[in-house]
Formats: sequence, C-alpha cells, structure tokens
Amino acid sequence: MFDETLIIGGKQVPYFRNDEFSQVVFSATSRLKQLLFNSNGEILLFTCSGTGAMEATIMNCFTEEDNLIVIDGGSFGHRFAQMCEVHEIPHKSVKLNWGDTLTKEMIEDIIGDEKFTGFLVNLDETSNGQLYDIKMISEVCKEHDLLLVVDAISAFLADEVNMDKYNIDAVILSSQKALSLAPGLSIIALSDKMLKRVENIDSKSVYFDFKNYLKNGERGQTPFTPAVRVIIELDAILKYFEQKGIDNIIRETNELATYFRKRIKEIGLDYPDYPLSNAVTPVIFPNNNAEEVYYKLIEQYGFTVNPNGNNFVKSMFRVSHVGNHTIDDVEKLICAIENIIEE
Amino acid sequence: MFDETLIIGGKQVPYFRNDEFSQVVFSATSRLKQLLFNSNGEILLFTCSGTGAMEATIMNCFTEEDNLIVIDGGSFGHRFAQMCEVHEIPHKSVKLNWGDTLTKEMIEDIIGDEKFTGFLVNLDETSNGQLYDIKMISEVCKEHDLLLVVDAISAFLADEVNMDKYNIDAVILSSQKALSLAPGLSIIALSDKMLKRVENIDSKSVYFDFKNYLKNGERGQTPFTPAVRVIIELDAILKYFEQKGIDNIIRETNELATYFRKRIKEIGLDYPDYPLSNAVTPVIFPNNNAEEVYYKLIEQYGFTVNPNGNNFVKSMFRVSHVGNHTIDDVEKLICAIENIIEE
Repeated sequence: MFDETLIIGGKQVPYFRNDEFSQVVFSATSRLKQLLFNSNGEILLFTCSGTGAMEATIMNCFTEEDNLIVIDGGSFGHRFAQMCEVHEIPHKSVKLNWGDTLTKEMIEDIIGDEKFTGFLVNLDETSNGQLYDIKMISEVCKEHDLLLVVDAISAFLADEVNMDKYNIDAVILSSQKALSLAPGLSIIALSDKMLKRVENIDSKSVYFDFKNYLKNGERGQTPFTPAVRVIIELDAILKYFEQKGIDNIIRETNELATYFRKRIKEIGLDYPDYPLSNAVTPVIFPNNNAEEVYYKLIEQYGFTVNPNGNNFVKSMFRVSHVGNHTIDDVEKLICAIENIIEE
Repeated sequence: MFDETLIIGGKQVPYFRNDEFSQVVFSATSRLKQLLFNSNGEILLFTCSGTGAMEATIMNCFTEEDNLIVIDGGSFGHRFAQMCEVHEIPHKSVKLNWGDTLTKEMIEDIIGDEKFTGFLVNLDETSNGQLYDIKMISEVCKEHDLLLVVDAISAFLADEVNMDKYNIDAVILSSQKALSLAPGLSIIALSDKMLKRVENIDSKSVYFDFKNYLKNGERGQTPFTPAVRVIIELDAILKYFEQKGIDNIIRETNELATYFRKRIKEIGLDYPDYPLSNAVTPVIFPNNNAEEVYYKLIEQYGFTVNPNGNNFVKSMFRVSHVGNHTIDDVEKLICAIENIIEE
C-alpha cells in the first residue's frame, strides 16, 4: 500500500449518504472509466471480493438462453465454469493443461459450428500467471459475435486493459491487487452494449442487482452500505495513478517483472514458457524446495510471496510485481532466495 | 470508531493465507460466539454489507419447500420479503403501519391454521427504531416449530441478543453499527440446528455458499479474499468489548438512549410510542422541520445524524446511540438541536 492511502485508513470513516461522498464516488468512477478506456459505459462498485463480482456479472449479464465459452486454464477460469454450472447457464470450457499456451485454434475447436453468445476469460489467470492474448480473443469475439467478459483483477495496471480498443463488454476488478488497497471492494465496468442487455435481464439476486446499482449510481450512491473507507482510498490512489500516467505504471511494472525474471534465471531457477502477465511471476524450483524457501523467506527475511496450492506447492511459488515495489525491493528478494537455496 | 481500531486502519494490510491470520479469525469468531451466546453453533464471516448477509442466509437456510413468516414493519423487513420473492421462497408478511407495535395476535392472525417453517425478523427495525419483543417471538417460534432468523445488525451490543436463551437459529450482524468498524464485513451466526439444515441445502450461489465457508472456517480461513483489515479490527474491538463486559455495554447504551429521550422531550420534540431499541431514537419534529435541522446540524455544529427517507424526511430524523459516544456528546447534540429550533 502507498502512503497516499494509508493515511486515510487511520481516520474516522465519514457518513456516506450525502453529497460529499457522492462526489468521491463520481470522482473515482470517472477516473476508472478513463483508465479502462470505457468511453460509453458505466462503472459499478460492489462490497465483495473479486469472486462475488465474477458471479454478479454472470447473474446479471447472462441467462439460461445464453451459451458461453469459458477459458478454463487454472483455478480462476475453473471458477467461472463452476458459476455457469450453478446458475444453469449453458457453456463449454476451453481446458488448458499445465504449461499450455492458449491459441485461437483451441478456441475455434471448441466453438466448431455451435452458436455461442458470450466469452468469459481471466485475462491474467492469477493461479499460474498466464496472460491470454486479448487481441486474438477480441478478434474471436468479433467474428462470432460474442459478448466479452474480462476478469482483469490481477492484470489491471500491469497489462493493457482497453475496453474500447478490444470491444470488451465487462471488466471485473478488485481493490487488493494493483490498486494496492485493502480487500473488500470490487469494481465492474460495463460497455454500453452490455448495459442495454442488463436492462432486459431480471437479476436473481437482490444484493447483486445491477439495475439497482445503476439507478443509485446516477446520484453517486450504492443501494446498500458500501465499503466507504476503501472507496475513499480508491479515489485517492486513482488520483495518484492518474498523475503517474497509466502507460508509465504498466511500463514500470513490466520493468520490475523483466528484471525479476532475468535475475531468477541467473540464480538457477526458472519460470514458465507461456506468455506471462507483468503482474506476477511463477517461480519454478527444479529441486522441489519451493515450500521450504517460502517459509524461510518469511522467517529469516520477512518477505511474503504467494505459495501455490495442491500439486504445485513444492515446485512453485508466485511473486507479485504490483503494488508499492521498487527494483531495489526485487533485488533484495532475489538475494534472499539465492541465500536460502545455496545454504 | 475507537482508538483501538483506528490504529489498525493506518497500517499495511498483511497477507492472510497463513496461520497468523487464521488465529485472528479463530479469536474473533470464538469471542462472537460468546457475545451472542451461541454455545453449539458456528460463526461465518462474509465480505458484503448486511443486505448481502440477509440474502445469503435466505439462500442457504431455506428453499422453495419452506414457508416463512416475515415481519414487514419498515424498509429492512420489507427487504426480507423482497428476497423471499426473488428466491421464490413461499412466505407471508406481518405488515405494520407506521406507529403500530408488533403483537403476538398480529403474528397468530397471519399464521392461522397454515403450516410455516421459519420466521424472519429485524430485531431492531433500523428504519424506525422499533425493537420487537424477542421473548414473544421466541415463544411463537417454539409453539409453531419455526426456525428463527434474526437480523441483529443494529440491535447487537445495544439490546439483548441471546441465541441460546431465545432459540435463535441465525443471527446477522454487520461491522459498521455497534461494532464501530468500517463497513464491508458481515457476520452470520448459525445454531447447531440450522447447521444441520444448511448441510442438506444446495446453495444457488458460489460466493455465498455457506458449506464452503464452514469448510474453510475449520482452518480459520474464508473461501475468497476476505475484508482482512476489518477482520483484524473486529478482533481488536471484540477484545476491548469483552473487557468491558456485554452487560455493561448494553447498559451504557441504554443510559445514553434514556438520557437522550428524556432531553428530547424537554426541548419540545418527541419520539414514537412503540418499544424502541437502545441503538437509535427516531426524533419526531411536530413542526416538520427535521430536514432543515438536519442540514443546520452539519453546517453549524458538525454533527451528522441519520435522515429519514421518503414520507418521513420532514417529520423525523434518527440519532444513533451506538459507537464511541458519551453523555457529554449527547448533551452537546441536544443543545445544538435546541439552538436551531429556537432560532
């Protein structure tokens, strides 16, 4: 987290059903529209984790009449498929095995001659760091007339997320990744095309009813008590990022990722071959000592990285490049890892 | 908010998928079990507003096979009824007109000879401050074998909420009322009886699937990224409240409410006749200048009270007695109101 937001966290949370808070909401949502290149759409703010926002999008943008393509290349893609299952929305998954790079052919094979209406993808599949090719995906969606839903929770501010350029109809964001805020707030950006669709769907949820959020959003409010403190911090961090410029933020994140990846090879470790998001690097440990290194980094150096689950707990952990980091921090982490593996 | 939690808000938010955070969750949930007198049940933590938790409870505890009694005595009771509608759960509402006191006869009239399975009530109907008679409700539920769901969002720590004593099967709480935390976290307490029921219901939600929260709760975790910062603050404030003792907290809140109500009559204003929660006093303005006084309190004195909506905006506003208040604060507010109405 940045100092710009930490000073807000320690203050009393103000009352929010007034014009002062509405102005904060308007300020934050208009900045998000610019950063996402969402010229003609709307921004909605939800008090929930990113998973809640993923499910809210599925519930408000699609029905049993739809047929969706889901990119299931890791645990977050799999979650999208599970949500379609629970809400009885017809769908087919493009399943990737570990290490596979998503290609246009894989998607076309699943589509075949069938008629689909929408496409769900986690732009950066956070569980393994694969960055899918948004240009290719956008072309597929255009050719098959598919509504494109992009979970950009970890890709936002690390990789290009441009709704106008790639005809993206919904983008899902979360407060605790590159926005560097406390968890608890999610953001959904809708295109004008998706907004028209939402108007004609009866949401099966009271808490996640988009139409109610759109109506309240007109006066800078939410239907239910929002995560007020995180929204105030959101506005502050967006002002800070706006000053830096989105291209500079992405470039700096890329520099951190590139430097880290160069150094990780130099110390005898590796990372996957598939295209990677700038947000995160999965570090491969040929000697299967990832878990041991993970704990020693905490105990001996005070560094916390992201452990992988299940089958990958020994072979891999992930290192984030978003948030308040510098090249110096990266180098310190590399030295710590090197010391531990050479013990 | 109290100093005990404000110092946490200004700090970096720690990583949460580890034993350290699990211990915080265990500490907070075991304290909540004690404060709610929930001897044999469980506590679940959700990243959402109180409305999300109300809907999650309906979705996980009831199905189309049920038949519920809903106390619809204000906007929050009405919201419960709306949720039953959306989720197609059969229900009948006990509707109260403005000023009505809920009685056993009103409920029995609606029940008649029909078979019901559950009862939904907002213990303090926050929109108008009526505190329903939990002893009477508990008796009705026992006589008719109804599962009792209590929204205690504003009543908790202000009025008695005792799950064991009143056979309450689910209690819904929210971080931003008497817990005096930032909004964004909700709490659901389930009795052992309700837990058995939840096990046999297939949740129609991924984000709000109680079974998944129960499973993850065993290791002090949540299935999805929680509102980490608010949970850490929750644990801190619960420790503070535990030291004070719940009876003392309720007594102090009652003293503030009693003092405020005595003074409000002395300056020529009024409050409703029906039983009131200690959490809030609706102040009645015989001259219909509530809205004017509301704005002058902010502009001239820096006091924010809760305006009423719709038909009551001119005749009434509400004053909270929960949170970090003293008798001195109450007296200052009374003086400010008196000055404004005598201008």
